[in-house]
Amino acid sequence: MKTVTVTLPAKTYQIKIAAGLLTQVGNEVASLWSPRKIALVSDSHVEPLYCEQVETSLIAAGFTVHVYRVRAGEDSKQLGVLSSLYEELLGDDFGRSDGVIALGGGVVGDLAGFLASTYMRGISFIQIPTSLLAQVDSSVGGKTGVDLNTGKNLIGTFYQPDVVLIDPTVLQTLSQRFLVEGYAEIVKMAAISSLDFWHLIENINQPKDILKQAPALIEASVRFKAQIVEADEKEGGLRQILNFGHTLGHAIELLAGGQLAHGEAVSIGMVQITQIFEDRGLTPSGITAQLKKQLLAVGLPISSDLIGSPQFYELLKHDKKNHGDQLTLVYLKELGTADLYPVKLTAIHNFLNL
Amino acid sequence: MKTVTVTLPAKTYQIKIAAGLLTQVGNEVASLWSPRKIALVSDSHVEPLYCEQVETSLIAAGFTVHVYRVRAGEDSKQLGVLSSLYEELLGDDFGRSDGVIALGGGVVGDLAGFLASTYMRGISFIQIPTSLLAQVDSSVGGKTGVDLNTGKNLIGTFYQPDVVLIDPTVLQTLSQRFLVEGYAEIVKMAAISSLDFWHLIENINQPKDILKQAPALIEASVRFKAQIVEADEKEGGLRQILNFGHTLGHAIELLAGGQLAHGEAVSIGMVQITQIFEDRGLTPSGITAQLKKQLLAVGLPISSDLIGSPQFYELLKHDKKNHGDQLTLVYLKELGTADLYPVKLTAIHNFLNL
Repeated sequence: MKTVTVTLPAKTYQIKIAAGLLTQVGNEVASLWSPRKIALVSDSHVEPLYCEQVETSLIAAGFTVHVYRVRAGEDSKQLGVLSSLYEELLGDDFGRSDGVIALGGGVVGDLAGFLASTYMRGISFIQIPTSLLAQVDSSVGGKTGVDLNTGKNLIGTFYQPDVVLIDPTVLQTLSQRFLVEGYAEIVKMAAISSLDFWHLIENINQPKDILKQAPALIEASVRFKAQIVEADEKEGGLRQILNFGHTLGHAIELLAGGQLAHGEAVSIGMVQITQIFEDRGLTPSGITAQLKKQLLAVGLPISSDLIGSPQFYELLKHDKKNHGDQLTLVYLKELGTADLYPVKLTAIHNFLNL
Repeated sequence: MKTVTVTLPAKTYQIKIAAGLLTQVGNEVASLWSPRKIALVSDSHVEPLYCEQVETSLIAAGFTVHVYRVRAGEDSKQLGVLSSLYEELLGDDFGRSDGVIALGGGVVGDLAGFLASTYMRGISFIQIPTSLLAQVDSSVGGKTGVDLNTGKNLIGTFYQPDVVLIDPTVLQTLSQRFLVEGYAEIVKMAAISSLDFWHLIENINQPKDILKQAPALIEASVRFKAQIVEADEKEGGLRQILNFGHTLGHAIELLAGGQLAHGEAVSIGMVQITQIFEDRGLTPSGITAQLKKQLLAVGLPISSDLIGSPQFYELLKHDKKNHGDQLTLVYLKELGTADLYPVKLTAIHNFLNL
């Protein structure tokens, strides 16, 4: 088992990575939580595949388990679904000493995390991410959230889990498309973290390489993410570099109206923003080509017709990461090193020139 | 101006108390916040009385102010109202660097605090409490919340404000009933904190004394509350003593269906629980009589027919402060000193014998 520790002012917790960990969930949870009621939140894709073994393991370890299933997909990250979950937990007599476990991808993790952070002003919480995207990114760092009609994650909290349990074997049931979109976030982490990590992903030449090397890729990603979160838990500064590819990516993702997966939009966003900074001489030449090569190798998209429209610029202006009248872009100073570049909202059209 | 400092691991902030402070809000806020958009959240009672002077003061200090008014009363503390506020802030382009100010009583403070703590994962927040209850209790300590149909404050966060600005002169427009119910929480604080504080309230012999001595009463209350919150921000232990009178009080308040104000229910709860502990010899004899004398002097109720019914016990069993299968009661070891007393839920009927 690989273990990465996240040390924050108010809390220290571990991210554990091991093949077959799903069958050990009961023991892992029992090492942290006294006997209690557990709300096991999952979705219509993951629940039939993995819920029973997790539930069995938890019951064997002495816990009482209630399973709450939401519909798979981003649509479940809304206040209405949350409101039903509050009522269900209350109806099942959940109290302050009980806990929530998220078993699923990013949607389930964000929704269950927000539920745990606000039910009775916060009850204990554990993440068991089952998508590659959630395993390498969204399950680590304590971001929770639900969407409003007008944008993703506009409502949320920072709320750290007690442990993150990652079993890479569950990736075998992931469709190639969603394995690959998760890998886009790994490419992002490699590009902004270190040359060593970048060399690791240079071994990925086709989608099936991702699955083969998943444990190492996950470990490198969460180790880097943990460092960033330790340095800047609430995204006041440094943590913004994780936003590489995301400013353009989020706008593209919204404009695509569900046709592009998050990682696909980020893939496009990374290439487009890097090209812009390379053209301006702030990113060394050749880096965009290196990024493209890695992304294209697994079939990720690198461009989109959705970029540059008036709606595209309108969405950038309303990005929730804007501070006052400026947008902070992330660019590569070299492969493995990112920096922030603030641009006034009024100048953004001119600057991007897309 | 009196200033009480609250020092917590992640944040230090001040509670400022001064007559006429409402007209100085702009300067006070400008000493903490850079120019930004401010969501001034108020209710239909307070907004016509005090919103304009606060707004004017903020605008003069260079802020952009948007006023959001909710209907006065506990009914506004619900997810539907919150959801509308999210959409309004978003429509008015509020971003992460903007802020929320609560101008009102406990309902507005709890609702606006939850809004601030969850909008874009948390934006800056200031409390300007205008009821006595909010000034001495709910505005200090960072509890935010909304209600579910089945109970109060079941959804919420711990989220500390950047400052609490208390102007005792606004109490002059409070009805006597709501002045007196706020005073019930002051009696609670005095009873559990120190003999000095108890001697202070022994000077209150009629409702108009409350208004006269409001600055001293408020200062003593927030000073004590700040100490408790510093020692136990998330209510894991010591903070539970603030719950004196509240376990029975909450149940009575719910059963009364709006006919009893919170402080009135707490008044009844304090007397009833103290009588029980006095009968058992855990509270010295005569203390219930002293409590009754102070509460009756201002016209607070000390008993209710609503106590002891099957529904009453049912509500106790579902109190959100229960941990697992036990309820933690707060009792007076003497005047000015409280302690916790856990009782198994299965034994609660026998123990209380109401």
